[in-house]
Amino acid sequence: MSRRNKQSSETDSAATRRQFLKSSIAASGALVAGSSIAHAKADPAIAYVQDWTRYLGDGVNAAPYGKPSEYEKQVVRRNVEWLTASAESSVNFTPLHELDGIITPNGLCFERHHGGVAEVEPDLYRLMINGLVEEPLVFTIDDLKRFPRKNQINFLECAANSGMEWRGAQLNGCQYTHGMVHNVMYTGVPLKILLDQAGLKTNAKWVMAEGGDASGMNRSIPMFKALDDCMIAFKMTGEALRPEQGYPARLVVPGWEGNMWVKWIRRLEVGDEPWHAREETSKYTDLLENGKARRFTWEMDCKSVITNPSPQAPLKHKSGQTVITGLAWSGRGTIKRVDVSLDGGRNWIPARLDGPSLDKSLHRFYYDFDWNGEPLLLQSRAVDSTGQIQPTKTELRNARGYNSIYHNNAIQTWHLKKTGEVENVEVS
Amino acid sequence: MSRRNKQSSETDSAATRRQFLKSSIAASGALVAGSSIAHAKADPAIAYVQDWTRYLGDGVNAAPYGKPSEYEKQVVRRNVEWLTASAESSVNFTPLHELDGIITPNGLCFERHHGGVAEVEPDLYRLMINGLVEEPLVFTIDDLKRFPRKNQINFLECAANSGMEWRGAQLNGCQYTHGMVHNVMYTGVPLKILLDQAGLKTNAKWVMAEGGDASGMNRSIPMFKALDDCMIAFKMTGEALRPEQGYPARLVVPGWEGNMWVKWIRRLEVGDEPWHAREETSKYTDLLENGKARRFTWEMDCKSVITNPSPQAPLKHKSGQTVITGLAWSGRGTIKRVDVSLDGGRNWIPARLDGPSLDKSLHRFYYDFDWNGEPLLLQSRAVDSTGQIQPTKTELRNARGYNSIYHNNAIQTWHLKKTGEVENVEVS
Repeated sequence: MSRRNKQSSETDSAATRRQFLKSSIAASGALVAGSSIAHAKADPAIAYVQDWTRYLGDGVNAAPYGKPSEYEKQVVRRNVEWLTASAESSVNFTPLHELDGIITPNGLCFERHHGGVAEVEPDLYRLMINGLVEEPLVFTIDDLKRFPRKNQINFLECAANSGMEWRGAQLNGCQYTHGMVHNVMYTGVPLKILLDQAGLKTNAKWVMAEGGDASGMNRSIPMFKALDDCMIAFKMTGEALRPEQGYPARLVVPGWEGNMWVKWIRRLEVGDEPWHAREETSKYTDLLENGKARRFTWEMDCKSVITNPSPQAPLKHKSGQTVITGLAWSGRGTIKRVDVSLDGGRNWIPARLDGPSLDKSLHRFYYDFDWNGEPLLLQSRAVDSTGQIQPTKTELRNARGYNSIYHNNAIQTWHLKKTGEVENVEVS
Repeated sequence: MSRRNKQSSETDSAATRRQFLKSSIAASGALVAGSSIAHAKADPAIAYVQDWTRYLGDGVNAAPYGKPSEYEKQVVRRNVEWLTASAESSVNFTPLHELDGIITPNGLCFERHHGGVAEVEPDLYRLMINGLVEEPLVFTIDDLKRFPRKNQINFLECAANSGMEWRGAQLNGCQYTHGMVHNVMYTGVPLKILLDQAGLKTNAKWVMAEGGDASGMNRSIPMFKALDDCMIAFKMTGEALRPEQGYPARLVVPGWEGNMWVKWIRRLEVGDEPWHAREETSKYTDLLENGKARRFTWEMDCKSVITNPSPQAPLKHKSGQTVITGLAWSGRGTIKRVDVSLDGGRNWIPARLDGPSLDKSLHRFYYDFDWNGEPLLLQSRAVDSTGQIQPTKTELRNARGYNSIYHNNAIQTWHLKKTGEVENVEVS
């Protein structure tokens, strides 16, 4: 074992040992890099002579609330500074290319604010129900926790997700093109239970949900949806809502555009018609070529994207066994099928769906294949449980023109180059 | 709106405003506290006059990797200092009483180390397969990511969870009595795929999994389990494994005791018999009254616990509508049913299971009822998909005596007092 002998003659500092080990293993790693199979013959010396096996590490409770590894510092939400005038009315993006599975860790769920993050003190929080009800009511957080709860895993997608791509391939990375989506498990009280508590009047047809942030963000929710699967949530993936996601309580509107999921929710006003709020007139409408606009386009359409490889996550090998993976979702139900194309949409091959298939939740797909090392035009195409098929960009533009921002669910194309690098492109 | 008028005459400091609002709302909150219904009549002034609605909050990317609210500082893993001699070979506990749903946030998954947290550099990480295989192999992390992946949500429970309770009610809080369990979604490569790559010899019956930490923690896994549902995982709930959970890769052994889920895994040796390692002889065996010990007690038995109310989470109201909630799990499959008792096990009422029911995963149950304000002896009892029924402490002691530490899956009793406080007790 010459490596071990050499090592014992080094000075005793951990830094020196680490440097030595790094260079010796990097050289051995080169054996793997050029190979088309994803392993090398075992060299026992490599597996054993590691610094971290020789010294005690941190004990328990070094971090009572744990954090990611120091080696994962690049895995963060990112914003695009030129996109908005201020950080308080802006957005950042989930690093989809760094994730796998279907749940988005709470620290990485994209943010979208209209007046910054409201700092709500939970003891002072109140939720009021008023309007066309028998008895206007107000609830504390402790009150809410005395009603029957439910749990559901739902994706939340901003209606503007992929919006920059309407007019062409612009943002180079799925974090930016598709990162205004996240998927967590919500725990809360069904909205129906709270509305029933107040007692709906016979002409109660709409609910106006109003946020407690500085923008007083509000949206009109039709009663059929409010009584169906909406909830007032106070937990996300087990723990309290994060401040930027509406702490201590938000509205959950499964499958519908994220703007309706009012955060820091303070009031539910029941009425007989919609409120025609700013966010459903000036914004969150789809301007068509004829000058008319689509309104109340609530449901998020069937959509998918390949997250790896992608511009921020190039391939490190040059050929051989390769995993293509991505996400698919639909506001109308589950995902029935995802196809993958390697040639820009000429030929399609079924991908493998893996993990729980849940209503209005992200689905994970994989396509395992042997890459010949030649350039590819990668696409994915989802089909949902209602039969809706994800359209091409051309199909979408033929239907809605070039003026839209919202509800772009078109097929995305990545150009995988011989180098393993990936670029955002369009195919005609 | 006299409150608003009063407020505008205050000094302009935010602290003064906040203090004023707090006292005025606390007074109004008293209306709710004495009531048995979980709401009050709406007073519009309360819902509107809140400080946080009047000023812009933080913009996006104030925290590129997000954190919990400042008001949730009590929601952390906790250790018990007298329990172990050193923090490097110790344990801390998941705050189950602060959580809901079925997924444990990564920052709150309990820790158990035998030599501290190994600080593994992902570029230097290697996994070796040797022993009774056709070709010994070594994999880098990038290599592993080129094999087909799968996703599954599994609980991980330390065999010693609830171990202190064998001899009587000792630790006052479900975080301490039951907090050595967590439940996350793992993404990784099925162990079968990697073993097949190396090629198993005909006499290959066991796999020794060895960790890269300072303790070189190792366990023998029978081949039938290794080829069934085990995996080498590199993601937990979407993101990279946390350092204290084995970054960059760990073994997942669904339904089996946590000690076998080797972290920082560096080697899989294939053999024809078990290794009789320290962790399957001196430890992780169950000493019976006759002096013999049960060995290789791998499967985690059917179990449940009420998480709320519990000693660390008393009720804040004195009677009326109340939610009892808790967790149930089994290493043998899914949970078919959970019953709740209010009288120490004399009478049982079916609880409501809510959220996805997944194989070898935590299940969430609720029991919604109208509390009459009298003391109760709260218990939960789970039944799994194989028909196993969670035993009483008496039944378990009759079978195994008082010497055991591991595999205590007995029914837990909480004494709910008139004050809303809760104590860990035993009933005969």
